[in-house]
Amino acid sequence: MEILNRIHAPADLRTLSDLELEGLVVEIRDFLVEKVSATGGHLGPNLGVIELTIALHRVFDSPDDPMIFDTSHQSYVHKILTGRADRFDSLRQKGGLSGYTSRSESEHDWTESSHASASLSYADGLAKAFEITGQTDRTVVAVVGDGALTGGMCWEALNNIAAGYDRRVVIVVNDNGRSYSPTIGGLAENLASLRMQPFYDRVMEQGKTTLNSMGWVGRRTFEALRTVKESVRHSVIPSEMFPELGMKYIGPVDGHDLESLENAFRYAREHQGPIIVHCVTEKGRGYAPAENNVADLMHSTGVMDPATGLAVGVSAPGWTGLFARDLVEIGAERDDIVAITAAMAGPTGLARFGEAYPDRFFDVGIAEQHALTSAAGLALGGLHPVVAVYSTFLNRAFDQLLMDVALLGLPVTLVLDRAGVTGSDGASHNGVWDMVVTGIVPGIRVAAPRDGRQLSELLREATDIDDGPTVVRFPKGPLPDELTAAFTLGDGVDVLVYSDCVDPEADPNAAENDDPAAPSVLIVSVGAMAHTAVAAATELRERGVDVTVVDPRWVIPVAPSILALAADHDLVVTLEDGVIHGGIGSLISEALGASEIDTPLRRLAVPERFLEHASRGEILRELGLDADGVVVQVESWLRTIGFGESPVEPEAPGGDA
Amino acid sequence: MEILNRIHAPADLRTLSDLELEGLVVEIRDFLVEKVSATGGHLGPNLGVIELTIALHRVFDSPDDPMIFDTSHQSYVHKILTGRADRFDSLRQKGGLSGYTSRSESEHDWTESSHASASLSYADGLAKAFEITGQTDRTVVAVVGDGALTGGMCWEALNNIAAGYDRRVVIVVNDNGRSYSPTIGGLAENLASLRMQPFYDRVMEQGKTTLNSMGWVGRRTFEALRTVKESVRHSVIPSEMFPELGMKYIGPVDGHDLESLENAFRYAREHQGPIIVHCVTEKGRGYAPAENNVADLMHSTGVMDPATGLAVGVSAPGWTGLFARDLVEIGAERDDIVAITAAMAGPTGLARFGEAYPDRFFDVGIAEQHALTSAAGLALGGLHPVVAVYSTFLNRAFDQLLMDVALLGLPVTLVLDRAGVTGSDGASHNGVWDMVVTGIVPGIRVAAPRDGRQLSELLREATDIDDGPTVVRFPKGPLPDELTAAFTLGDGVDVLVYSDCVDPEADPNAAENDDPAAPSVLIVSVGAMAHTAVAAATELRERGVDVTVVDPRWVIPVAPSILALAADHDLVVTLEDGVIHGGIGSLISEALGASEIDTPLRRLAVPERFLEHASRGEILRELGLDADGVVVQVESWLRTIGFGESPVEPEAPGGDA
Repeated sequence: MEILNRIHAPADLRTLSDLELEGLVVEIRDFLVEKVSATGGHLGPNLGVIELTIALHRVFDSPDDPMIFDTSHQSYVHKILTGRADRFDSLRQKGGLSGYTSRSESEHDWTESSHASASLSYADGLAKAFEITGQTDRTVVAVVGDGALTGGMCWEALNNIAAGYDRRVVIVVNDNGRSYSPTIGGLAENLASLRMQPFYDRVMEQGKTTLNSMGWVGRRTFEALRTVKESVRHSVIPSEMFPELGMKYIGPVDGHDLESLENAFRYAREHQGPIIVHCVTEKGRGYAPAENNVADLMHSTGVMDPATGLAVGVSAPGWTGLFARDLVEIGAERDDIVAITAAMAGPTGLARFGEAYPDRFFDVGIAEQHALTSAAGLALGGLHPVVAVYSTFLNRAFDQLLMDVALLGLPVTLVLDRAGVTGSDGASHNGVWDMVVTGIVPGIRVAAPRDGRQLSELLREATDIDDGPTVVRFPKGPLPDELTAAFTLGDGVDVLVYSDCVDPEADPNAAENDDPAAPSVLIVSVGAMAHTAVAAATELRERGVDVTVVDPRWVIPVAPSILALAADHDLVVTLEDGVIHGGIGSLISEALGASEIDTPLRRLAVPERFLEHASRGEILRELGLDADGVVVQVESWLRTIGFGESPVEPEAPGGDA
Repeated sequence: MEILNRIHAPADLRTLSDLELEGLVVEIRDFLVEKVSATGGHLGPNLGVIELTIALHRVFDSPDDPMIFDTSHQSYVHKILTGRADRFDSLRQKGGLSGYTSRSESEHDWTESSHASASLSYADGLAKAFEITGQTDRTVVAVVGDGALTGGMCWEALNNIAAGYDRRVVIVVNDNGRSYSPTIGGLAENLASLRMQPFYDRVMEQGKTTLNSMGWVGRRTFEALRTVKESVRHSVIPSEMFPELGMKYIGPVDGHDLESLENAFRYAREHQGPIIVHCVTEKGRGYAPAENNVADLMHSTGVMDPATGLAVGVSAPGWTGLFARDLVEIGAERDDIVAITAAMAGPTGLARFGEAYPDRFFDVGIAEQHALTSAAGLALGGLHPVVAVYSTFLNRAFDQLLMDVALLGLPVTLVLDRAGVTGSDGASHNGVWDMVVTGIVPGIRVAAPRDGRQLSELLREATDIDDGPTVVRFPKGPLPDELTAAFTLGDGVDVLVYSDCVDPEADPNAAENDDPAAPSVLIVSVGAMAHTAVAAATELRERGVDVTVVDPRWVIPVAPSILALAADHDLVVTLEDGVIHGGIGSLISEALGASEIDTPLRRLAVPERFLEHASRGEILRELGLDADGVVVQVESWLRTIGFGESPVEPEAPGGDA
């Protein structure tokens, strides 16, 4: 790491010789493999942009020239070059370096979100701001993948950027021909055809020779630049599409040739208006285990052996795998089942369905809006679509779920993976909003399985419903042990732990004889939180609290038996891994209000703030959403409503603030 | 209406002579002007598509060939031609014809939503369903405006449609060069350059002649068709952009020439794959008051005099106009204020800001996602953007608000017009979801002014906040009378009506001496519902109920004084014109739970169902959200919690079910 150790800021890059630059590329590659193997993270995408990022930081002057990385999972090299190499051991760990750009880490980071396709809109806004404030010497650079370009936001932004003739926006298309998996659609084919042109290599070679022969390094006078510009202009293959939008286009550029990249970027920097630089890169470049893993080129990896790329430790079967298996089974039984993914066939498990039934499988690109509304179209055509997305990305398609699916009462099943607190991917990947937004969709039914058996059952129930949208949500990670219900109520609510209030054997008239000092608590648990609820109940019962734990299985709409049970207990506690506002606790509170049942209700849920990255367990514990936290909180609440020791002064509780 | 009276279904169109067809165009134009003048509605867009819709229904076989109208405000002619002419007197009235396509009205209507840019996604899904189910003889037709094409959903859909080489999707681009107002951006300029090509007229003329000379009508043998296809292929001006996406393109076609339209559509119908037909139309065509009104060509009109196009009755000053005036004032004082609209400069009132400060005004197209994230970019550049959109369209940009604005804590002010129940535009235009989705955005502050004075004050307060997003929401319609507060609490909550509980003159220790039979109710009113709350309070006080009415002004987050007041009353009632789930009532309930205050709380709000179109007043009354409804409901609730007559059996209440 001899050269890398000398790089503390982008300016240090500009003093390196060509030979040192080539050495730096190798050092950064080794550094990435070593560090990301130990922590997990987005390895492949960053291996693909080493040269591109070096060239950007040599040509543009960050942070005066803002660099916006789309999605920003490919910003590791940028972090290394902007003084954060020494923090990579803490990547994605609690208190450590974020896996995405982060404004609190560096002035070189401008954005935080990891949701795709937003970078061009940011760039348009920044460029407009620079125009208004007279800072016309600043150039905004956006680095966007070919996959992200399939997202509608990019189209909206391109239309606007193209209209700003004088605004200096450089759009660097990082084209590796695969976003999470091979990019689909008309745009992808257009980019591919550009890449495949037989004279591409020749032209690239020619451009390089021409520029080299001019000895451009160190002699960047106005005259030389003018010549370079002319040279580049004639060396590149024009695309027709971007010029039709009024946008200058240069490329394709060999994304692993530093000199070609710098030439293109210098040309772009001099251009007095919006310009697209199309760079062709290889994901996983230079790392054999990635290059041999054609499927996803190690898009995102857990902890692994750096020599082999194989995961360390055997991972338990997970929620995603079980869903993938079950959907293939259902697909075998019913030929009206079709599956849709937004560019995440692998991560959502839909790839197995796609292999089994290629004619009934659609990867629509990073295009959640289209995923939902084309599902509506498929349902109008008599089929039953299953759309699998990460919970956090449903936010992109809320309007489509409400207006295009639910308003028409169409049978579309949404499968939300990574629901609840996800952890290490940081604030924007947590799936803590889905129960709120689905809660306001008329006619929708939402299931939250607590274990694998429930997932299998509820997925079948959801796909059997044909008069409106359904949702099945489950968290990230391995499947928990199965939790068998003591008994199931008439409306499908599972009773996991029961108190005298609901003991089917107990004399219903005997309830009045209970010791009034023994308070009764109904815990309504959502999905995988059931295990926490049962553990807390066991402890509370030992402390003399009469606890019932129910798992509604279908959490939206509220099951009638929940209301009846609430009326029979002294306190209702809801436990969920979504945000408090508008969560299942509030849904039940609203239903209780409508039924004029005023049993005190308390919510254990995620507070309304963005969560720092850490493991799921760490975050839940910190929020008081582990068994210990539940016990402490319930006992405190019981005291306030008059049970146990004398009521304490109300204080802001950890989980319900 | 001699010809029109003979049209009961699309098949009837196919028996008409050329002369009769021309007559039909005139009759439909007169019909539209007469009917829409009486009811209000989207006149201009429908006048522009008379010939286009006739030609579509002559060439395609609806409903076997589904026709999806994007946004569907331009579906009046389609409704006329599919047997609904006799219902036009009831257009947009309670129980009458919807202003958009409606599946309950006709098998010829496939969709309901009036949110733009969704039609191509529906079409893609339907075409996929037809492929899977072997119905390959069915063609899906989508009619989409050039404005809607600026929405990202269309890009996502085009990418997917282009990838389906064999699927029969005909995309009819209805290009009038203006969506709500002149379309902006790179795409618009591309379409404009096509329209402007000097040889357009000549080519169109030539195509017509060629086809006419072949006597194609009635002689559509295979051979003739093949020739027609060749002829059309060579007569049209190719666009480069769509072919690069892998999409066949024909056009531009004169959208007011029935023969050209039919030729193009017949060619498209025979094409075994996706195809774009670019039609150039004139909004407001043939109606002088529209043609002379260049600004919006009567995009949407209220009741008016058909001869002059002038509105009947003088309309009172509205919320929108006041906002427009105030923002211009603020813009004069602060040069960091910039304004953004998503193609609705007129309807949102931003046009006045745009005229005053053209350099600080941006119309981004029908692109709410880009509106929010480019606002984030402007804020990163040091400015304070004001984004004005209809409340219902915020749903399109929820993810961008959460991830791109709030996660970065950026000062962006959202102005939500048409918040709450809007009425005559139907289910999809009601702004009843904004308080739920903004309620889960960390750090956001939401203001709901109750009258014009409050709007002026709160808009200034919102734009003064520089550490996170703010929202100002107000309803559709004229400004209500001003409601002066009795006094204002320390945290900005206005007390409009006060009971003994909050009487600043009363002895705080005297409360215990109150007659326990006189129940006390705290009504928390949201925005313009304050007038209803005060009217209801007046009536309730006459009936012996001790009522306090407060208007929090800032409804998110919950003001601390609301909690303190809640603890001092027997019942809390929240009154809002958004949906129950996750509304302000639930926010207050959550805050009360966190503070362990268990005063019974009841919510008066909009139920979780899609609302049929009717006037705002009719809908609010039907939902029990008028003063009479509030009085009845509050008295009933008081009885159940033990005041007044003996408690009645709980029943599902009208406003809280």
